[in-house]
Amino acid sequence: MRFTKMHGAGNDYVYVNCFDEPVPKDPAAVSRLVADRHFGIGGDGLILICPPTDSGNDARMRMFNADGSESEMCGNGIRCVAKYLYDHAVVPKTDLLIETGRGTLRLELETSGGLTERVRVNMESPVLKAAEIPTTLPGDPPIEVPLEVDGRTFKITAVSMGNPHAITFVDSLEDELVFGFGPKIENHPAFPKRVNVEFVKVLSPTEMRMRVWERGSGETLACGTGACAVAVAGVLTDRTERRALIHLLGGDLELEWSEADDVVTMTGPAAEVFSGEIAIPQ
Amino acid sequence: MRFTKMHGAGNDYVYVNCFDEPVPKDPAAVSRLVADRHFGIGGDGLILICPPTDSGNDARMRMFNADGSESEMCGNGIRCVAKYLYDHAVVPKTDLLIETGRGTLRLELETSGGLTERVRVNMESPVLKAAEIPTTLPGDPPIEVPLEVDGRTFKITAVSMGNPHAITFVDSLEDELVFGFGPKIENHPAFPKRVNVEFVKVLSPTEMRMRVWERGSGETLACGTGACAVAVAGVLTDRTERRALIHLLGGDLELEWSEADDVVTMTGPAAEVFSGEIAIPQ
Repeated sequence: MRFTKMHGAGNDYVYVNCFDEPVPKDPAAVSRLVADRHFGIGGDGLILICPPTDSGNDARMRMFNADGSESEMCGNGIRCVAKYLYDHAVVPKTDLLIETGRGTLRLELETSGGLTERVRVNMESPVLKAAEIPTTLPGDPPIEVPLEVDGRTFKITAVSMGNPHAITFVDSLEDELVFGFGPKIENHPAFPKRVNVEFVKVLSPTEMRMRVWERGSGETLACGTGACAVAVAGVLTDRTERRALIHLLGGDLELEWSEADDVVTMTGPAAEVFSGEIAIPQ
Repeated sequence: MRFTKMHGAGNDYVYVNCFDEPVPKDPAAVSRLVADRHFGIGGDGLILICPPTDSGNDARMRMFNADGSESEMCGNGIRCVAKYLYDHAVVPKTDLLIETGRGTLRLELETSGGLTERVRVNMESPVLKAAEIPTTLPGDPPIEVPLEVDGRTFKITAVSMGNPHAITFVDSLEDELVFGFGPKIENHPAFPKRVNVEFVKVLSPTEMRMRVWERGSGETLACGTGACAVAVAGVLTDRTERRALIHLLGGDLELEWSEADDVVTMTGPAAEVFSGEIAIPQ
């Protein structure tokens, strides 16, 4: 199986061009195999770049996590899909419609010399109703609600971007906070489907630094929906403007929550690291 | 740069065939780049498979760690070098002489259908003088010397296989032991150059299970010299025979400490996972 290794702000997947290669018979098993960082290729999972099911669209993305489960969407992954389609001339357009498990998303590419440098993704509108996030915290959405965890009180703002996020603004982003309280907030009874946790330090009204504790994964280098949720929480708590630059461990993302249409757009890097070939047991 | 990803019992490196490819100008920088598991290829470092400097030998191995430092030898890595040479018909022999920073080592291959399955490596004699290991513990070598660490006493047997090892036999191999006491024994003043720490559970006189805390790296899936040191310590403490099977997290190794010539031989697997091509900045 031929593949390409790519990452978006450090969120790395093994990509297979299924316009040319056959779709693996058991993509869940292939994802588990290739994701292993010692015995496989290494990555956060497998992403298949497939022909669209509707001919009006440009491609279809299917993503599998390292444990083999299939996910609807990945904000960092879809930027890499767009870069692959353009850079390898599969779909030589800078304005793409890509089908995902969360519907068809529009992507715009910034290119230079035939290669994609950054990609802008329409991440749709945030979900702000507590019951839909879901959380039992009061408010639609809950804004700066005190939550006591192990004797320390965090002010939590909760937002869903298709998956639930709990955002807390803090003065510093030390390991003790992320590793000590991340898993406890993730599993707090106020979040019936658990929650992704974002610790955020505001640098200016247009700039933030964040670390993310992902539900089921622990700390990751970047989380696209998390960055969107942070941008929304910054506006909801009057800390930041509707357009902000966010620094994550794996790179920078530019976010905008449009007042006109309520849509969040995320602009960020996509990088191709290497390509290769691996034997897959049939 | 074309490369092949291989592992020996989970100890994984990026291998470059420098019989064909040019030797990178700055291999330390290339190792740091390719070893990164999110932004590079991912691995414990870079191993260059080079033509021998002495025409009586078959090849020369140069290995670089993930931090760019060069090491003399790696017992799991050299098995993969042998497999590469044979499987890719660079040197189609099952008895090889490979130059390393620790001298020229002899390797014997077990093959099937043109592919290498296991490789036997002459790992030379253990160093048993305390001053040469080095350790300030009493005895040449120190055998079952009580060492108090944070209120718990470990009986330590110390051996060098070119690098220092502290072996302690225990009843169970839980995380608390490895992560709690590994770094403390590693940095104990009794070991002036620090030490690799092996926690070992004896299953029978010919079988052990071990976990290793590597100096400067933390826990790893396998450590070839560590397995050799454990086999020697098993004999020195009358726990095991001169030939033993050792289970590590990343796979199994077969060890033998010869009474006739004092040499330790290690037999283990070597696996090719995938091959690829990556752009290296010049």
